[in-house]
Amino acid sequence: MSPNPFTLLATDPASKARAGLLQTRRGVVETPLFMPVGTQGTVKAVSPLELHELGAQIILGNTYHLHVRPGEKLIARQGGLHKFSGWDRPILTDSGGFQVFSLAKLRRITEEGVHFQNHLDGTPTMIGPERSMEIQRDLGSDIVMAFDECPPHPCSHEDASRSLDLTLRWAARCQAWWEMQPTHNRPLVFGIVQGSSHADLRERSARALGEIGFDGYAVGGVSVGEPEPEMMAAIENAEPFLPADRSRYAMGLGTPPQMIEMIARGIDMFDCVLPTRLARNGTAFTPTGTMALKNAGFAEDSGPIEEGCACYACRGFSRAYLRHLIKAEEILGLRLVSLHNLHFYINLVRTARRAILDGNFSDFRRDFVGRYVVRTP
Amino acid sequence: MSPNPFTLLATDPASKARAGLLQTRRGVVETPLFMPVGTQGTVKAVSPLELHELGAQIILGNTYHLHVRPGEKLIARQGGLHKFSGWDRPILTDSGGFQVFSLAKLRRITEEGVHFQNHLDGTPTMIGPERSMEIQRDLGSDIVMAFDECPPHPCSHEDASRSLDLTLRWAARCQAWWEMQPTHNRPLVFGIVQGSSHADLRERSARALGEIGFDGYAVGGVSVGEPEPEMMAAIENAEPFLPADRSRYAMGLGTPPQMIEMIARGIDMFDCVLPTRLARNGTAFTPTGTMALKNAGFAEDSGPIEEGCACYACRGFSRAYLRHLIKAEEILGLRLVSLHNLHFYINLVRTARRAILDGNFSDFRRDFVGRYVVRTP
Repeated sequence: MSPNPFTLLATDPASKARAGLLQTRRGVVETPLFMPVGTQGTVKAVSPLELHELGAQIILGNTYHLHVRPGEKLIARQGGLHKFSGWDRPILTDSGGFQVFSLAKLRRITEEGVHFQNHLDGTPTMIGPERSMEIQRDLGSDIVMAFDECPPHPCSHEDASRSLDLTLRWAARCQAWWEMQPTHNRPLVFGIVQGSSHADLRERSARALGEIGFDGYAVGGVSVGEPEPEMMAAIENAEPFLPADRSRYAMGLGTPPQMIEMIARGIDMFDCVLPTRLARNGTAFTPTGTMALKNAGFAEDSGPIEEGCACYACRGFSRAYLRHLIKAEEILGLRLVSLHNLHFYINLVRTARRAILDGNFSDFRRDFVGRYVVRTP
Repeated sequence: MSPNPFTLLATDPASKARAGLLQTRRGVVETPLFMPVGTQGTVKAVSPLELHELGAQIILGNTYHLHVRPGEKLIARQGGLHKFSGWDRPILTDSGGFQVFSLAKLRRITEEGVHFQNHLDGTPTMIGPERSMEIQRDLGSDIVMAFDECPPHPCSHEDASRSLDLTLRWAARCQAWWEMQPTHNRPLVFGIVQGSSHADLRERSARALGEIGFDGYAVGGVSVGEPEPEMMAAIENAEPFLPADRSRYAMGLGTPPQMIEMIARGIDMFDCVLPTRLARNGTAFTPTGTMALKNAGFAEDSGPIEEGCACYACRGFSRAYLRHLIKAEEILGLRLVSLHNLHFYINLVRTARRAILDGNFSDFRRDFVGRYVVRTP
């Protein structure tokens, strides 16, 4: 554990929302923040230059995917993931745990780690805590996630407890691995809270990780199919027992109002594939909810996705044109909607941060969540 | 026919290559030039901003495709194709003839025009010379192509002659249609030479179009599956009989050395889908030939596609990274290769122009064509 990399700048008096700074070895990032997801070494359909212009402070890379293809050793020989992918700001890598459990075949979990066949060519592989740390080191990650088991939803108390015990032993091994590494220019290492929907397990997980001691703490096993109240409860049940002076990261979510509600519950960092995934289907985010640009009603709509939005798509292109591109399956369509959606997500969390600093987060939260209509597909 | 929009600046003493300027209602373009193809109102995977940065002077739009979807009336109501697609430099639209003959179903050709069912939803439609001119006017095209019949290859002399006669009658009707339009701010109108592989028909076509009188002349019915010597012959058989003081445009081709050889045969303008189409398959153009980036040999190649190339892909990304993106089917991969390939095409023709102006086109032609290895797939 390095000196605390997190600096608390302001807290919201009416909630647990907080604004801060997180020092990584590639510079400081401002929290709360949203991190675009670059699963395979690229944020889908978006260039590094565009990410810079969007104001992305940090992006994600995926340990499992990059290990399978092109391989972390190849990336290391190419100078690391930053140089390989042309991104010079911080990178956070997830541990690979979630993908091993959701994508790989023929899994067998042992104390050592997870034995599996990868989803591309079936190569037998084992990833355990130490291997995950090695891969993330080889990638050149600036924020490394501990290797965890991510149980499916729903999960009985007995199964979740047994899984959590394993995850905690793995977390300790991850931290022990880093303690044997040179301290110079070491990345930050985050532990991951598990425990499924069980309040006592979330508490136990948070307390135990705090005792091991990490540079920051993530809440995992959320957004895995559970109803939204359970998702919120998973955060609420863990947060009070996490060290208050460290960053908190809710993994893999969520919708815009979910992020605001998570910020109100003390979360600092988010990542989510929704902005780019929905963009590829022609769905844009707006302050009042999602907009399916394929709808016939937009065929002659000469306005932008969102009036006043500063993104490249809204500055130059109409809903009518975007609808045409999406209907015609033109790549420029999903590119432009991806840019808009990432801008929306990054800007939304940045605006929440500004509101915390300005002391009006409660108003912002009430207004935003009140206006946003969640549309179920 | 407007006052001659073409200004001849220089000719190569050893060939028919020439450098000039073409005045359109949206500004002057420098010839020889390469025009990226924006079939459905977007150059595939490339944004208008990127086209500007690539130095594209003019792009193509496709009358048939845009008529079928979203429709020229919708585009006109949105302010025309320039405003609709965010492109403020000149646009050339082809006449739709080629696509009617290659894509549409249940074609029936009459003196009036072509009756067909479109390839998307089978809607019965008729496009003839006047209808094609109306569509191109509604799109807001700056260079309009006459409506022609494009016979398949091979084509007997009898069939090609009959088809050519129809194309010439249609060409006269296109010109007559424009003569009834307001002259203010009128686009340029180009005739299209046909005649298949028959020298006498190419000559007859060129002479007859010259007598009708157009702002410029295209050679069509090339790159339709004929061997390269026939393609060159089609140009050579038409060129001497085209008005020397007007622009010449070879439609839908070709490889880099073909373009240089066409320039040497007096051609000023090119369009081709190869740079973007091959990019989507991971194939990059270089001065020594194409490069299949999927090849295993590039897996650890840290160099750019082309050393010294000024495009965004070559300035920031290695062959190893591009190969990874293409293998992983990431959109950024085909985006970057599309940018490189368009840069290569635009820059190649611009370099040929510079060589003509500098009086060393013959050296340039010999060096370039000599070094370029044509790889058959």
